[in-house]
Amino acid sequence: MHDAQAPRITLDAFQELCAHSAPFVHYFGFKTEEIGAGTARVRLPYDEKFVRPGGTVSGPAMMALADFTLWAALLGAIGEVPLAVTTSLNINFLRKPANADIICTARLLKLGRRLAVGDLLLTPDGEALPCAHVTATYSIPPRDESD
Amino acid sequence: MHDAQAPRITLDAFQELCAHSAPFVHYFGFKTEEIGAGTARVRLPYDEKFVRPGGTVSGPAMMALADFTLWAALLGAIGEVPLAVTTSLNINFLRKPANADIICTARLLKLGRRLAVGDLLLTPDGEALPCAHVTATYSIPPRDESD
Amino acid sequence: MHDAQAPRITLDAFQELCAHSAPFVHYFGFKTEEIGAGTARVRLPYDEKFVRPGGTVSGPAMMALADFTLWAALLGAIGEVPLAVTTSLNINFLRKPANADIICTARLLKLGRRLAVGDLLLTPDGEALPCAHVTATYSIPPRDESD
Amino acid sequence: MHDAQAPRITLDAFQELCAHSAPFVHYFGFKTEEIGAGTARVRLPYDEKFVRPGGTVSGPAMMALADFTLWAALLGAIGEVPLAVTTSLNINFLRKPANADIICTARLLKLGRRLAVGDLLLTPDGEALPCAHVTATYSIPPRDESD
Repeated sequence: MHDAQAPRITLDAFQELCAHSAPFVHYFGFKTEEIGAGTARVRLPYDEKFVRPGGTVSGPAMMALADFTLWAALLGAIGEVPLAVTTSLNINFLRKPANADIICTARLLKLGRRLAVGDLLLTPDGEALPCAHVTATYSIPPRDESD
Repeated sequence: MHDAQAPRITLDAFQELCAHSAPFVHYFGFKTEEIGAGTARVRLPYDEKFVRPGGTVSGPAMMALADFTLWAALLGAIGEVPLAVTTSLNINFLRKPANADIICTARLLKLGRRLAVGDLLLTPDGEALPCAHVTATYSIPPRDESD
Repeated sequence: MHDAQAPRITLDAFQELCAHSAPFVHYFGFKTEEIGAGTARVRLPYDEKFVRPGGTVSGPAMMALADFTLWAALLGAIGEVPLAVTTSLNINFLRKPANADIICTARLLKLGRRLAVGDLLLTPDGEALPCAHVTATYSIPPRDESD
Repeated sequence: MHDAQAPRITLDAFQELCAHSAPFVHYFGFKTEEIGAGTARVRLPYDEKFVRPGGTVSGPAMMALADFTLWAALLGAIGEVPLAVTTSLNINFLRKPANADIICTARLLKLGRRLAVGDLLLTPDGEALPCAHVTATYSIPPRDESD
């Protein structure tokens, strides 16, 4: 919805912010590839540590990827708001993913003053069809109106 | 819904199964405390590696905990079915959790031949009110009818 | 979570409020049976007009019932706030309901200043097991702090 | 995902099927405008009977619209399967809709042998931004393999 605007945070500034964030993020090794004004694309590099019995990337690793990617898209829309918190997340697993990186793309469906809603597709690198679909909401802390 | 029945997997057998499961589970250090026939209680020990900026346990760690706990409850109801897979998960974050272990309790709402549905509450140890609520569904692979 | 408190709206006052509300509510014929401080029980009388091919109460009628029942529980917790609006609703259908009234029970899981979250069970009258489970969130308009 | 294929049910055949379906569908007056192989567009004509206090189309009317539209998209993909039933539905309300018809567009994200998943956008006629987003799943009864 904001594609025509410039993002409120650059990819470099976002990566710098992440470098100082929680160890949990580093564990996953997310690679943020693009940030727009309400959109983002993040890659989860394939790693055996995420693989569950049966040979697929575990669901919780995909949920973590989606949660992170929507946060990137939100910061792309409103700038650095580190205290925005997820209030809900709904994931549907669609197909068993290949043993590959997972690419997550987010777009904001709504950006209100207090609440943002987005949806996301997760697709194994090199495949045409998504392996999961996510809808999630973020609560935005009070901001200066001039912001 | 199955409380009056004996579980189809013992706590010991479940822990043995987990000992051979994916590294992702070991990363979280889940402690399975109880398994019933369609119920389970699992503890996520507090660890700084899960804490996000602002000092709370990260949402994805709670999602992983819920996903694991429902799997335990499901195996308590139908026995060892390693290939059961999550098909959807919906989480609502209710309150900022204290810096404490998170206790997750699961109950099955439905156990069909192909699909199980459960809901879960996540509560910081020592607190009265839950920090998150989850509903999730599992797809159950075809089984021998005599099972 | 508020069971020990008195409701902020009486059953009579709530029914009076509903008598002046939208025709959509009258179409369903909801009977509000109980309101507590964060809880409610509402009955959808069985009517052939809600029945879908195959002989079960249609899903949207159950969604409407759940949405209405959580609104009743919310008003039981905070008093008459007609402009509270649903922000999300997640329903899982568990079993084909019998041809009977559907009883919906709601409880609030969270009551914040801006957001309320509740979960609900829908059970055909006379049956032991629920036919649907719902989680939903309500946005609460700004209120006088003394309220 | 099936856009390049012909639909498995024509718009005429679908409307004929609906003419013999439950009174609940007639109450809403849905107008099915397009069916593709896994896609559909359905209009909810504006009617005061759906309007809630505050002057917006009620949430349950939008849920009914989404549920119906995904059913149309599913039949567009697999042909007439009247006994397909919704197993879950998740809706996020994004904006207060204008007093206008609501247009709902559905696409299937997954079409398995037993389960279909789709997402939908609901947009007031004449507006650019959606008022609601839905994800839903349908359970598909066993079919002849040659079908």
